[in-house]
Amino acid sequence: MYNVKVRAHVMVAHSLPDPFFGPAQNLHGATYITDVCFYSKTLDKHNVVIDIGMVDKILHETLEPLQYQNLDNLPQFKGKLTTTEFVAKYIYDQIREKLKGVFNGKISVTLGESHIAWATYESDE
Amino acid sequence: MYNVKVRAHVMVAHSLPDPFFGPAQNLHGATYITDVCFYSKTLDKHNVVIDIGMVDKILHETLEPLQYQNLDNLPQFKGKLTTTEFVAKYIYDQIREKLKGVFNGKISVTLGESHIAWATYESDE
Amino acid sequence: MYNVKVRAHVMVAHSLPDPFFGPAQNLHGATYITDVCFYSKTLDKHNVVIDIGMVDKILHETLEPLQYQNLDNLPQFKGKLTTTEFVAKYIYDQIREKLKGVFNGKISVTLGESHIAWATYESDE
Amino acid sequence: MYNVKVRAHVMVAHSLPDPFFGPAQNLHGATYITDVCFYSKTLDKHNVVIDIGMVDKILHETLEPLQYQNLDNLPQFKGKLTTTEFVAKYIYDQIREKLKGVFNGKISVTLGESHIAWATYESDE
Amino acid sequence: MYNVKVRAHVMVAHSLPDPFFGPAQNLHGATYITDVCFYSKTLDKHNVVIDIGMVDKILHETLEPLQYQNLDNLPQFKGKLTTTEFVAKYIYDQIREKLKGVFNGKISVTLGESHIAWATYESDE
Amino acid sequence: MYNVKVRAHVMVAHSLPDPFFGPAQNLHGATYITDVCFYSKTLDKHNVVIDIGMVDKILHETLEPLQYQNLDNLPQFKGKLTTTEFVAKYIYDQIREKLKGVFNGKISVTLGESHIAWATYESDE
Repeated sequence: MYNVKVRAHVMVAHSLPDPFFGPAQNLHGATYITDVCFYSKTLDKHNVVIDIGMVDKILHETLEPLQYQNLDNLPQFKGKLTTTEFVAKYIYDQIREKLKGVFNGKISVTLGESHIAWATYESDE
Repeated sequence: MYNVKVRAHVMVAHSLPDPFFGPAQNLHGATYITDVCFYSKTLDKHNVVIDIGMVDKILHETLEPLQYQNLDNLPQFKGKLTTTEFVAKYIYDQIREKLKGVFNGKISVTLGESHIAWATYESDE
Repeated sequence: MYNVKVRAHVMVAHSLPDPFFGPAQNLHGATYITDVCFYSKTLDKHNVVIDIGMVDKILHETLEPLQYQNLDNLPQFKGKLTTTEFVAKYIYDQIREKLKGVFNGKISVTLGESHIAWATYESDE
Repeated sequence: MYNVKVRAHVMVAHSLPDPFFGPAQNLHGATYITDVCFYSKTLDKHNVVIDIGMVDKILHETLEPLQYQNLDNLPQFKGKLTTTEFVAKYIYDQIREKLKGVFNGKISVTLGESHIAWATYESDE
Repeated sequence: MYNVKVRAHVMVAHSLPDPFFGPAQNLHGATYITDVCFYSKTLDKHNVVIDIGMVDKILHETLEPLQYQNLDNLPQFKGKLTTTEFVAKYIYDQIREKLKGVFNGKISVTLGESHIAWATYESDE
Repeated sequence: MYNVKVRAHVMVAHSLPDPFFGPAQNLHGATYITDVCFYSKTLDKHNVVIDIGMVDKILHETLEPLQYQNLDNLPQFKGKLTTTEFVAKYIYDQIREKLKGVFNGKISVTLGESHIAWATYESDE
C-alpha cells in the first residue's frame, strides 16, 4: 500500500455554542495545519499515487472558501458544531467530491490545531 | 473513521539490564514525548470523538506517577525491561483502565524518545 | 549568554480592518504557538536563568485572558491592528510587567501562526 | 500491535523525464527524510519489536549506495521514474531483503521530501 | 526589535567538486527548507515589519529560477562551490536586491538541508 | 554573518538535589536534543563556516561520555546542579576545548529537553 501526503493551512474563526465546550463556546479561532493523504495499492504509469500538482490545486481550492472566514457565518455550517473532527470530515467531503471519478481510493484529512492536538477523518479503504 | 490525538511528555530514568542493550544497560534517562490517539467510527452528539478536556486530564494523571521518577524503583516495573515499546503499552493500559466504561474504541500511544526514534502500542479496532 | 525558552499556545479570533490586509480584513482566527525566551549573562545559585515553574505559570496567566477570545472585543485591543507582530509585543509587555523586579534581562516572544510564518518581539539586551 | 520507527536521511539528484512532471523533468535533487517503521503483534524476550541497533545499521547500509548520488546514473534505476513513492518502495525492498529470515512482519517506509510533502510504502500486515 | 519569518522550499541538484567534500563531490541534490527573516526596530502604520504578502511573492520569485534546477548548470554558479552557506547568501543577495528601496533593515536566510543540518546568512543590523 | 547548525541527541539520568526543583529533585532523566551552532563573519576557501564532517565527529565525541549515563555519578558533575542550562554550557566548553586553535568564533549550544522547553549557552561574538 502506498500513500502520499501534502500539507497546507487555513485560519478561521468559529464558536462551539454548547456548554460541553466550556470557554470554547466563545467566538475564538484556529490555524488548522491541514494534511491530506491519498492511499493506493498500486502506482499509476507515472509511478505516482496521484498527480501531486492536481492535489495541491484541489487542496487550496478546498481551503479557499474557509480561509480568513468565521465558520459561524458560512451557510454550510449553520447549526453545526464545527469541532476539529467535524471540519476534518468537511474538508474530506469537499476533496472527495472534487476528485469524483478521478481518485476513488482511501483519503484521510488531519487537522493540527496546535503543537499538542490533532483530529483526523479517514475513509474506509 | 475519526481519531483525535493529544501530546504531553514525561521525563524518567531507567536502565535496561540485559547485555542485549549494550550501553543502555546503564542507568540513564529519557524524555518521552507522549502522543495518545483515540479512534471512533462516529462522532458523538457534540461532534467529537471524545471529550478532549477529560483526555488531557487523564493523560496527565497517567504520566504523573512516572514524572521525574526512576522506573527501576517503581514496583510495577520490578524485573521488567522498560523499553520504549513496553512503556508505551504500560501507558496504554493505564489510560484504557481509566476510561473503562467511558471509551471502548481503539487507542494508540506513541512515545518519541528522540528526534529520530519512536515506539507505539495500538489496540485492535 | 544563556537563554531558556518555553512554549504554550493560544487560540483567538480577530480581524485586521484595513484594506492593506486583503482577505484578512474578515473576522478570522489563529492558533499562536507562543515561545517565550529569557536571556541572562549568568546563572543564579540554582544554575538556572529563571525559575521555569514560575515562567510556565506566568506564561499561562498571560495567555489566559486571550484564550478562546475574539481580540476585536477586548478593550485593550480597541482600535488596534492586532497583527502577529503586535500580539507578540503585547504578550511581551504583559510578561515584562508580571516579572517587574524579578527578572530584568532580555526577553523575546515568538508567535508561530502556521507552519510557515512567525513573528517575534525581543527587548534590547 | 506495536511498532518502532527510526529516522535517517539521504541526499540525491534525479530527474523525472516525462512531460507529466513539468519542471521536475529537469535534473534536480531532494533530501529524503527517511522513516522506517517495523510492526509486530508481540514483543520479543527483550521487550522490543526489533533490535534498534541492527535496524539503524541496516537503514544506513541501505541509504549508503544512494547517498550523494544521481539516481539517473545508478543501474537499478535505469529507465525508471524515481518518484518519491517509487524510491520509498525501493528502500522498503532493500530493507526487506536484508532482514529476510530475521524480521517477517509489516514494514513501512516514509520519505519526507519537504516540510509539506511525503510518500509512504507499507507492506501488508 | 521585531522580526517576521516565512518559510518555503526549493529542490536542487549540485555537486561540490573539491576533495574537501568527500562523497559530496558527486552530483547529488537537496531540498532546502528556506526561512527568510526580516528585522525592524519599529512597526509601520499597519503594525507590521513588512508586507508579508509581498515577502511571500518575492521569496517564491527568488526560489523560482533555482527550483528543479542543477546548480552546476546555472551561469551564476559557474566555478562556485554551492555549499549550503553559499546558497543561503545567494538567496539573501537576491532578496536584498529585490527589496532595494523598500526594506533596508536586517535580513537573514536559513536553509535547512535535513532534519539535522542548517546554514544561515544574516546581514548586519 | 554566517552560521551552521548540526543536531544530535543524548539520553541521561540525573537529579537536581535542591528543594528549589520540587519533584525534579528525584533521580529522573532526559533526552537532550542537542543543536550546536558555529558563527563566522566569512566563509573559508571551501565556502563553509567550518568542516561539517569534523563538527559531526566532535559533537558525537563530546556526547559519547554522557550517553546512557547518570550524570550524578560522573566526576565532572559532582556537587553540581546539572540543569539544562548547565549541561548546555558544559557541552559548549567541551566543544570549545576540542576546537582550540581550529575554530575561534562564536559557538552556541541549545538543548531541547522536550517539545516545550529549551536552554541555550552561547559565547560572545
